[in-house]
Formats: sequence, C-alpha cells, structure tokens
Amino acid sequence: MGQPWERIFAGSERRLKSSAIRDLLAVTAQPDVISFAGGLPAPELFPVDAIRESFDRVFRTEGAAALQYGPTEGHMPLRAMLAERLSARGIQATPEEVLITTGSQQALGLLGTVLLPRGSSVLIEAPSYVGALQAFTLHEPEYLPVRMDHEGLVVEDARRVLKAASVWPAFAYTVATFQNPSGVTMSRERREGLLTLSHEFEMPLIEDDPYGDLRFDGKAVPPFRALEGGDDAVYLGTFSKTLAPGLRLGYVVAPRPLISRMVLAKQAADLHTDSLAQRAVLDFCLHNDLAAHVDQLCRVYRERRDAMLSALKRHLPSSCSWTVPEGGLFTWLTLPEQVNTVELLREAVERKVAFVPGSAFFTDGSGGNTLRLNFSHPTPEKIEEGITRLGALLTQRLTSEDAGGRLELAGSETR
Amino acid sequence: MGQPWERIFAGSERRLKSSAIRDLLAVTAQPDVISFAGGLPAPELFPVDAIRESFDRVFRTEGAAALQYGPTEGHMPLRAMLAERLSARGIQATPEEVLITTGSQQALGLLGTVLLPRGSSVLIEAPSYVGALQAFTLHEPEYLPVRMDHEGLVVEDARRVLKAASVWPAFAYTVATFQNPSGVTMSRERREGLLTLSHEFEMPLIEDDPYGDLRFDGKAVPPFRALEGGDDAVYLGTFSKTLAPGLRLGYVVAPRPLISRMVLAKQAADLHTDSLAQRAVLDFCLHNDLAAHVDQLCRVYRERRDAMLSALKRHLPSSCSWTVPEGGLFTWLTLPEQVNTVELLREAVERKVAFVPGSAFFTDGSGGNTLRLNFSHPTPEKIEEGITRLGALLTQRLTSEDAGGRLELAGSETR
Repeated sequence: MGQPWERIFAGSERRLKSSAIRDLLAVTAQPDVISFAGGLPAPELFPVDAIRESFDRVFRTEGAAALQYGPTEGHMPLRAMLAERLSARGIQATPEEVLITTGSQQALGLLGTVLLPRGSSVLIEAPSYVGALQAFTLHEPEYLPVRMDHEGLVVEDARRVLKAASVWPAFAYTVATFQNPSGVTMSRERREGLLTLSHEFEMPLIEDDPYGDLRFDGKAVPPFRALEGGDDAVYLGTFSKTLAPGLRLGYVVAPRPLISRMVLAKQAADLHTDSLAQRAVLDFCLHNDLAAHVDQLCRVYRERRDAMLSALKRHLPSSCSWTVPEGGLFTWLTLPEQVNTVELLREAVERKVAFVPGSAFFTDGSGGNTLRLNFSHPTPEKIEEGITRLGALLTQRLTSEDAGGRLELAGSETR
Repeated sequence: MGQPWERIFAGSERRLKSSAIRDLLAVTAQPDVISFAGGLPAPELFPVDAIRESFDRVFRTEGAAALQYGPTEGHMPLRAMLAERLSARGIQATPEEVLITTGSQQALGLLGTVLLPRGSSVLIEAPSYVGALQAFTLHEPEYLPVRMDHEGLVVEDARRVLKAASVWPAFAYTVATFQNPSGVTMSRERREGLLTLSHEFEMPLIEDDPYGDLRFDGKAVPPFRALEGGDDAVYLGTFSKTLAPGLRLGYVVAPRPLISRMVLAKQAADLHTDSLAQRAVLDFCLHNDLAAHVDQLCRVYRERRDAMLSALKRHLPSSCSWTVPEGGLFTWLTLPEQVNTVELLREAVERKVAFVPGSAFFTDGSGGNTLRLNFSHPTPEKIEEGITRLGALLTQRLTSEDAGGRLELAGSETR
C-alpha cells in the first residue's frame, strides 16, 4: 500500500547525490578513530560560560520578543553591529546590505536559488568547498572549474575557461582565504585579477570567508569588497568558526537588489533565523572581546597546524606533498598518481584514522590522489598518533604499489 | 562598475515573487495599527522563565556539545522523544522516521526540493497556506487547486481535477486541521477519501499540522498517519505554535526513503538545525507539562476567537460571512463579490486596522473578495476595536459600492 518512492525519486539522482564517502565517514564517529575528516572547531575552546550568560541576559532583558517570529532579514541591531565591525575591516556595508542566515551554508543555498536558473554555469575553484557544490548542484549548473596553485585560483586559466564557456557564468565562487579544502590563500594580485574578470564578464563574485579571522602567521590579504572595484562583491561570513557552529548563525553582505531576492528565497526556506540565537550572539559580542577569543583560537590552532606539518614531514613517504596553510582548519595532501584516496580511506578506517578523499571536492572526477586533513579538532597528541598511522599505511601501500607494478608486468592481478 | 542585477534576475520573476501585499503589511508594524494580519502566537503566553531554565540547564549539563556541529537528521534524543509522543497520538513513527527541521517552513522547502522536479504538478487546497506556495513555486509546478467547503477539501473535486490533470501529481498538500488560512478542519470521512485517492494515484500525501494541538472545542479528527492506510503519509509538526516560533524548530515524520532524500537536501540547505535549541526544547518537554501549557493557550485563544466571532456578528454588514473555527489561529471572511480586499486593505490601513487579502492564498487569481483574520495575537479589547473599525469601513464601502453601481449606470467612474 506504500508510495512507490523509487519511481518518485527517479530523475533526481543527479541533483541529490547520496555520498558513499559520507557513509564511510559515518564510522569515524567511533571514539577510537582519530578523525582528520571533519571541519569541526575545537569544542574545548567554546566560551560556554560567556555564551550561557548572554542567553540568560537576553531572556531577562528581552523576554518574549526573543522567542517570537522575527524579520526574515534578521535582527536589526545584529545587522547594524556586523555592518559596523565589517567596516572596520574595510568591508563597507550598511545594515540593510547585511542579511542574517542560518549558517553560511544557508547563504550558499539561497544564492543558488536566486542566481542559478536552469542552464546556468558557475566558475569555481578546483578543488572547491563540497557544501557549496551540494547547494549549487540542486540547480544542475554547468561547472567551470579553474586550476589553483599556491597563490590560489589561476586568473589566466579562469579567463580561458570563461572565453571557452558556452553559457554565460551566473557567478564566480571562491573561498579565497585558507580555502576549504586546500588551505591555500589567494594573493592580492590574483584577487584584483579575478575582480577585473568579474567586471569584464558581468559575473557577480561570491567570496565565502568562514576562516579569514583564523590567521596564524603571514599578512592578511583584503577581502574582495575591500579592494577597489569590489563594492559589488558578495561576502559570506559566519560565527561558526569564531564562536560556535551549533547556533547556525551566518550572514551575507551584498548589494541591496541581491539582498531583496535572497530575502524572498529565505522566506520560502525557513522564514527567518533563530531570534534568540541572533540576540544572544549580539549580546556576546557586546559584552565580550571576540577578537581576544579569536586570538586564543589562533594560538591553539597554530600549535595544531605545526604538529600536523611536523608529523607529515616525519611520517609520510617523500613522494607525498602538502600545502602549508597560514591559517584556517585544513591542509591538503597530494599523493602519487596511482593512489586512489577513496580506497585508501577504507584501509585507513581499519587502522582507526580518517580523512576526506579529495575527489569529493572536484566536479570533473579529478583529484583521486588527493585528500583533506583537518587539524583544528584533534589535539597535537592525536595528530601525531593519527599521522603516524596514516604514514605507516601509505609507506606500506606505496611499497606494495611498487611491488604490484612489478608483478603486473609478470601478468599478476595483485594490484 | 556594478553588476547588472536587473539582467541577472531577469527570468526568475515567476519563481521569486515580491509581494505587494507584504510591502503593504510592513506598515502594520506601527503600534497604533490593530493587526489581524500576522499568524503570531500571543507572546505574553510564552513560558519565558521555563525556557530560560532549560537553556541554562543544557549549558550546565551538556556544555560544548550543545554548541558544536550536529547531525543533519537532528539530535537523536529529541527525535526519539517526538516519536514516542507522536505514537501516543496514533502517529506511529520510529526515531529514524523523524527529521528535525528549522521550523516547518524548512520542511516545506525540502519537500519542494526533493519531490518537485521541473514539470511537476501539486494538488493543493484552495485557499492554501501561502508559505507552502512560496516554497513550492520555486520549482514552478503546475498547481491543481481543489475547492473546499466547511468539511475541508472536496474529495470528489480532487478526483475530477486529478483525472483531468496533464501531469502526474508529485504530491497532495493539506493543512487538514484549523487550516491556514480558512480555519476549516477536514472531516474524517474526507480524510479517508483523500487517502484512498493518494493510493489510487500513487501520490504522496503531505499533512502540515502546526495548529492541531490548539483545539478549543469539538472532537479531534485523527491525522492521516493515524488512519488505516495512512502509514506512508508525511506529517509536519512544529513547536512554533505550542511553545515559541523564534526558536525555529519543526519536524517531519515520513517513510525512511523520503527522510534520506530530505537529509541530503537539508545538508545543502543549512547542514543541521540549531544544536542548542534542539536540546533546550527537549529539556523543556522533559521538565515541564507541555500539554498543560497548550491547555492554557487554548483557554486564551478560545476567548479571543469568541471575541472575534461576536464582534464580526455585531459589526459586519449582513452580506459578509465567515468560518467558525474550532481551534487554531484564523477565521476567513467572504465579502460580497464586488469587494476587492487588496484595495480594501489600503483603506483599512488608513483606519489603522489590517488583515491579509485572500487572493494571496490562491494560485488561480480567485479569492479577491476574501480575507484572513488572526485572533491569537490581539487581545479581546483590540479585537473588538479592530473589528469595529473594519465593520465601519465595510459598511461605508458596501453602501458606496451600491451608490457607485448606480452611478456607473449613468457613466460615472467613481468605482
């Protein structure tokens, strides 16, 4: 008597992909697995007491208003505070140009809804943040992936890709600072080049910046909106990495015509973001020194990054290479061509260590020999132990690959 | 140098409609306007202290876990509690069949994403909840509106509509109890009829039930999932009307194949719902008598509904009629054919009273002479005063309409 769900879902496979990797990573929740797979901040650094006090204060001072329906655009005093603080960082914005979202993942979803009619194309970095790809793929765009190097997206490649594209690109999407997954930061020169391209091709530019505040060393590179000609760039921010992700509080800075459209899409998506959480985070920012808290995060994450880089150097075969991020949560490994990191993950999980295979971050099937490692969540001790396990596996694997290669010449199928 | 937003948005007008009514209603936030327009619960009834205590307890007992990323499906103990309590109401569900959503508006959005590929059709009530229409319209379905009477959706009309439809319906959507906007409750017989239709046409049935607990009098009618053959019906619930809407906490009960799909869509939409709010609402339910709280809501709302019905009887012209809801938040007015309630709203706002014009709830341009009134938010005194104002306006308007009608015969344009 049940509904024929298989028939009902036929045809939506491309838009909503169930991920084999996700199923595999589900097992990494086991306590004995050292997971470098998530993108989780370190919970021991959450300022739990101060956040609790903020919630308490909001209940006592604002009462029922904090529990009632609120405007889709967000709580105006929070929008105003964000506009003011962003201006101090060179991102000019009026409160009306700030939209509060249910995490910045929602901003990606709304941008997809608003900017990706059927038959669109999108310029993306290769690799690119998998959550953005999920949000955009619902609208089945043609992806225009652009190669990255140690200075970020290669602008001349982007120009070539755009000129060759059959479909006018709806927008360009970049995580320009401490990119997820690669950890790479786009140089100022590249940013200026991409901005020029965005004007030339009348292509809105979306900068997703969840990690920008988490700089451990090196000099900050300005966000696109702070560059000349960047007034129209869209900027996505979040409290997930600087305060706490569980509250699901993000924001978008964008020109008002785009904000208006996103508000309509947000009405349909969830009416508005949690009224109480918005007020509590505002209260937290007014009663605490968020910058000092972020400094503390940076000190701890720097130590973990250093532990990760040191362990990689000591435990990984010399045929492996990785990025050296100046901040953020991730480093990115490139292994010898013949290693398939999806297969490697299966073996790694048996050895109680986990990562995200890099192919998840590419739209064109490439990246099979890459993987992402998170260093913000595990302690330095766990990092050392986990990379030791991974290094042992890789050393063994690469040795047997070599052996396999030799055997193959003799007709064996051991590979 | 800015991006050409007008060109960029060209073509998405149909999917994302800016609402003239919304702009008009924005002015009703003025404190001297008596608004029957919103769908707001009475904030003076929010159990602010008890909710504050629950948040405080969660911070103290669960700490950082309540602020970390959580599973897309929702906090398992909350899902388990919902499954248990729903079973007591005849809605059989395992915890795995319960998905936590960011308000039930999000559930509508996810259902649209999952069930409405391009070229779909949807069976809806006429009138229908405007938020559902917004969520579905993003996917540009063909709407199959079905007439309602005092027993709800007319099943034989639904059958006729389905037989005549050129496109297989993706699902049927109903707010069967104390409908928004009409206040009407679908009878058990009609529900059984619609359930039969849903099997006959292999058409999933979605019951959106935000108001079902708010019954003032009469006998409860079982939800679809509690009826024979209703195991596959989708049920949408929320804490917005029974506890507090600002927390954005809703849930879906559905067969697991559908839940799996919705989880993928939710990952792209906002990763997961606020971890802290989920735990706090669970804590509230475990430490307080939610049913007793709902009883209190019903006592207050019953009084307000009675004040509304009494005022309508005393102040409205006899050519107007309205529904008599046994619960919920709304009553529905039908005015003489010649009244356009969008125009009427402009005049009403000048007289400091507001409502929602009924045409917003129809997909076929009908309902121009209808309107929705909310009675949960204003006090009985405000209801009396507001309906007095509306009655005076309508009396004058209908008198001048008559005059206008006569003048028109003489070639005047005063109408």
